[in-house]
Amino acid sequence: MTAVPLITFLSDYGPWDEFVGVCHAVIARRCPAARVIDLGHGVPRHDVRAGALALRAALPYAPAGVHLAVVDPGVGGERRAVAARVAHEGRVLVGPDNGLLAVAAEDLGGVVEAVDVSDSAECLRPISATFHGRDVFAPVAAALAGGAALAEVGEPLEPATLAALSLPSARLEGETLIAHALTTDVYGNVSLDATLEDVAAIGVHPGGALAVTGPHAAAGALLARTFGDVPSGTLLAYRDARGSLALAVNGGSAAALLELARDDELRLRAG
Amino acid sequence: MTAVPLITFLSDYGPWDEFVGVCHAVIARRCPAARVIDLGHGVPRHDVRAGALALRAALPYAPAGVHLAVVDPGVGGERRAVAARVAHEGRVLVGPDNGLLAVAAEDLGGVVEAVDVSDSAECLRPISATFHGRDVFAPVAAALAGGAALAEVGEPLEPATLAALSLPSARLEGETLIAHALTTDVYGNVSLDATLEDVAAIGVHPGGALAVTGPHAAAGALLARTFGDVPSGTLLAYRDARGSLALAVNGGSAAALLELARDDELRLRAG
Amino acid sequence: MTAVPLITFLSDYGPWDEFVGVCHAVIARRCPAARVIDLGHGVPRHDVRAGALALRAALPYAPAGVHLAVVDPGVGGERRAVAARVAHEGRVLVGPDNGLLAVAAEDLGGVVEAVDVSDSAECLRPISATFHGRDVFAPVAAALAGGAALAEVGEPLEPATLAALSLPSARLEGETLIAHALTTDVYGNVSLDATLEDVAAIGVHPGGALAVTGPHAAAGALLARTFGDVPSGTLLAYRDARGSLALAVNGGSAAALLELARDDELRLRAG
Repeated sequence: MTAVPLITFLSDYGPWDEFVGVCHAVIARRCPAARVIDLGHGVPRHDVRAGALALRAALPYAPAGVHLAVVDPGVGGERRAVAARVAHEGRVLVGPDNGLLAVAAEDLGGVVEAVDVSDSAECLRPISATFHGRDVFAPVAAALAGGAALAEVGEPLEPATLAALSLPSARLEGETLIAHALTTDVYGNVSLDATLEDVAAIGVHPGGALAVTGPHAAAGALLARTFGDVPSGTLLAYRDARGSLALAVNGGSAAALLELARDDELRLRAG
Repeated sequence: MTAVPLITFLSDYGPWDEFVGVCHAVIARRCPAARVIDLGHGVPRHDVRAGALALRAALPYAPAGVHLAVVDPGVGGERRAVAARVAHEGRVLVGPDNGLLAVAAEDLGGVVEAVDVSDSAECLRPISATFHGRDVFAPVAAALAGGAALAEVGEPLEPATLAALSLPSARLEGETLIAHALTTDVYGNVSLDATLEDVAAIGVHPGGALAVTGPHAAAGALLARTFGDVPSGTLLAYRDARGSLALAVNGGSAAALLELARDDELRLRAG
Repeated sequence: MTAVPLITFLSDYGPWDEFVGVCHAVIARRCPAARVIDLGHGVPRHDVRAGALALRAALPYAPAGVHLAVVDPGVGGERRAVAARVAHEGRVLVGPDNGLLAVAAEDLGGVVEAVDVSDSAECLRPISATFHGRDVFAPVAAALAGGAALAEVGEPLEPATLAALSLPSARLEGETLIAHALTTDVYGNVSLDATLEDVAAIGVHPGGALAVTGPHAAAGALLARTFGDVPSGTLLAYRDARGSLALAVNGGSAAALLELARDDELRLRAG
């Protein structure tokens, strides 16, 4: 752990309610020395995949610490609440066991120890049925930031039993790259399960042209570095801030232009 | 006061403007040692009741300190700006005297000392007509966090003269629970002025059915623990994160289904 | 620099993505002692002028430090990334060289030393084409907050070559004040390039009436202190929180009433 206990916090609680603030309050009461860095609370509500990918994108940039994440459509139900230590830097992830932590944990070397904190002694009681951020996850994160061992805040569980995240997988079919719409942001930019390297494998390099065919619509795109490299209204493919291949329209919405829904299959060819 | 001076901050300034940031800046200049915990700035604009209920919900989870709250439709007008010490833990609430602080103060043991800070020596001058968060409330909160006594930052006032908050009140009429729509969140979940205990008094227990009749529409509801306990599209009554009885539609809007406006009367019976 | 290194941060990254959080993470890794004050991240996307005016409005209230600002429609293109020390209090501004820093710097005494940090040794590499907040601006700000000199983080540049911000300019024509719509906020309040003093020069004082004529519509307005001074639905002119003359409709939108777009010319006369 760092000299100043550090907690990062990501959720889908949004900017409107007091939920984020109440979790900060709980942490400040339980571990006054902890510093909390908000990684963002604007994950689309209940969108576990979007939360998982945001967490994976953000954590490598954060100092090692306790990494709290809450996107929890199953709150109050059967899913476990967990804390999991990963191989890299001894970081500890805390959140619902619904896949939210899975890809970040994998990128950080995998889980080496985990506990079920659903009924942790640290929980605020009575535990509500709808706000485990406050009652379960924040107090457990605070205890861990304060120096508690995993074994002190929950019951051991087998790392292999942690929930995985279901993601599509891009593949090459001859000269065609088969990719999928992973997530769409508020501007209609669509992140794919592919990379610049995949596009290079079908012979398209920066500045080149792509033919993009979705289930409902098709369009030509330029493979560009950034929005400013293409005229307004033009579809571009580019490496986004997370390192994924993404589709965007300069001044428009790629999701709307291509009528794309999550997991839709896209066929990309040199064009 | 805590070792590190602590200020919590709640407002309706929203996530778009620089208003919240400027208040943080003012506090950092006046009391560099203070730590500020944002309890949320997404209270619906000028909605004093929603702010008051959010403040009441959040403060019990926060460490004792100075508790700044600004939802202030009457800014620049006749309403007083106040700082009020409550009985519990010596906490001090700072904000406009329009009812915003009333229910939180009541839950914290009531106000034992209060001052009018409208013309405090701490204010930034000239005091603007529209941004008292910056010019009045933040600097007063910073001074109090820095150790100033109430008497040093304002003129004494009689606690009994502080503005109250007007709230409806649920009641039983035979086998019927008469409740009211207190607040509606961005998802259309409607919080009522009643509790699970009130519903138990009409003979309905978790898992049971309720007939809910509003002024414009009626529907059957299940009394459930959480959204996952009912099918998608179903109306449920549940104990929300603040401990109030609330109505929601799994995957929909209870406010829309029942055509509810604030303070609308609802009749609940076993059904 | 202050005892605790201080960074303020303003951007158009918005509340939905992890972008703001990732910049905080980068700063915490590079300069763990730094305290970051968010001045706001809700600047309309790519709106350099709105960001510049928000920065100018906020900085005088903040402690001296490193002032990071990112509104960057040209990210990945030709524009320079810069750090600039101003005369007042030795503050350092960091951001894209597109006019965003210009008016704040001017108000703080002008730039006395500046460097091009586009290829700073502090940058995270590879530098992405779309997220210089993370890869360029945040690490440079962290280094400066940690005590690095300007010359250590970039290549010297001539302050006179820094981008200016193009703004309209109000003027008097006899008894008419010619002003322009500078910015519009989410409520439709329109800030002008004029002040109360300009209105006094055409003989209108608080409580007086104004005839306001835009390119598409005209209306009478009251010169008031605050919204509560006029009936609901009434157009008012007032001194806004930033000290500018602004137009608003109590309970409505001045931008909609007057059909105003940015830079539209308004003619104001005593009425």
